[in-house]
Amino acid sequence: MKKCVLVTGGARSGKSRIAEDLCLQMGQPATYIATAEAWDDEMRARIAAHQARRGPEWVTISAPLDLLGALRASDGKGPRLVDCLTLWLTNLMLAEADWRKAGQDLIAALPAQASPVVFVTNEVGMGIVPDNALARAFRDAAGTLNQWVAEAADEVILAVSGLPLKVK
Amino acid sequence: MKKCVLVTGGARSGKSRIAEDLCLQMGQPATYIATAEAWDDEMRARIAAHQARRGPEWVTISAPLDLLGALRASDGKGPRLVDCLTLWLTNLMLAEADWRKAGQDLIAALPAQASPVVFVTNEVGMGIVPDNALARAFRDAAGTLNQWVAEAADEVILAVSGLPLKVK
Amino acid sequence: MKKCVLVTGGARSGKSRIAEDLCLQMGQPATYIATAEAWDDEMRARIAAHQARRGPEWVTISAPLDLLGALRASDGKGPRLVDCLTLWLTNLMLAEADWRKAGQDLIAALPAQASPVVFVTNEVGMGIVPDNALARAFRDAAGTLNQWVAEAADEVILAVSGLPLKVK
Repeated sequence: MKKCVLVTGGARSGKSRIAEDLCLQMGQPATYIATAEAWDDEMRARIAAHQARRGPEWVTISAPLDLLGALRASDGKGPRLVDCLTLWLTNLMLAEADWRKAGQDLIAALPAQASPVVFVTNEVGMGIVPDNALARAFRDAAGTLNQWVAEAADEVILAVSGLPLKVK
Repeated sequence: MKKCVLVTGGARSGKSRIAEDLCLQMGQPATYIATAEAWDDEMRARIAAHQARRGPEWVTISAPLDLLGALRASDGKGPRLVDCLTLWLTNLMLAEADWRKAGQDLIAALPAQASPVVFVTNEVGMGIVPDNALARAFRDAAGTLNQWVAEAADEVILAVSGLPLKVK
Repeated sequence: MKKCVLVTGGARSGKSRIAEDLCLQMGQPATYIATAEAWDDEMRARIAAHQARRGPEWVTISAPLDLLGALRASDGKGPRLVDCLTLWLTNLMLAEADWRKAGQDLIAALPAQASPVVFVTNEVGMGIVPDNALARAFRDAAGTLNQWVAEAADEVILAVSGLPLKVK
């Protein structure tokens, strides 16, 4: 059984479903660590759709900023799914927190985790260079964080049209 | 011989050429089902370039909306290439048709097809989240449709720099 | 030992690091052929960060436009890393040079090169279709150039979250 898995992919690539399946195969019940904050109707609808798809085999906890705290609190109680790193990064940047330090602290804490963790993240760097500097800074940060977690992970999967492509 | 293949990839990734080669290997003549509508000069030039590359081994039919009808009409006459699902989806959304129903009807009709089908589609979800809601809705729909067809397909290929990367 | 390698990937996908490692494995010292022009502070910072990561095993030469001249001048002195084709294309287009001819001349000159070449390039076509025609023309050109170099290359790698995915 793998201890740490990263599932990356574009929007609507099926990465959450792939990650959920992987996570439940590692043990049940599993903990769903949601990093999304419902700040508008579109996001609320998206979160509701995700929750509706998940069944009673999931315990859901919310961690828009303190992801490390959520991992520690849920450790020893079965596998965890973190959905997703990109929203966590967004929240950190909006809160003007030090995302580099938060990311490095996360990586440093992974070896001590007793229960598996499956991270979901997004590929955001394969389009045209964005016009505005904030979007460029965000995609640079997202790519950097993905590299850090991928290096720490035992397994890395790229979701393409709902299918898993093994990268590591 | 595979019955249903999906070739996905970014803009100018060589996906159409890969799909054309695959289709002609399955039998000749082949039917090219074009979903593009020539609504401006840029698109007309693009369609003309595509047609110029294809030789007399192709019969071309146009199906901007009624893709299912085109598949039924061409069945039993050799392999079909559908180029592409993303433009078909665009046409459906512009016509305010029910793309979910059209997509599900397409999937449901595939098992009864006697001749092979190669679908071309686009990866549109690996860039920064678009500013406007319509673009976000479109990439969500495109990703969903891609997942449906990929699940139904025997083979899925991601085109990268003109080369085929096997996903399924 | 491979003579010509193409490393492609999105922004912050770790493609430069993967390409640097590959290049140094082929021989040292190696020549770093930089196509970037430092036309603003953001780009200057990016170039400085790249240079800081590279050690004394690199000889750096600058070739914003005359990439073919740089390859010829550095041939026979160990492996070369070209970072990157996408910026070279940008420079050619800004200079209103004939990028198609420049690209074809580059491909035609590769077989005569005695020392290995590793090219870095960008995936820019996997997002939503850009609003403006210039961006669409650029991503079409970038995809076309990538296909040409990938066809000429012995090996093609897609960088995903810092990890190499073999395409050819």
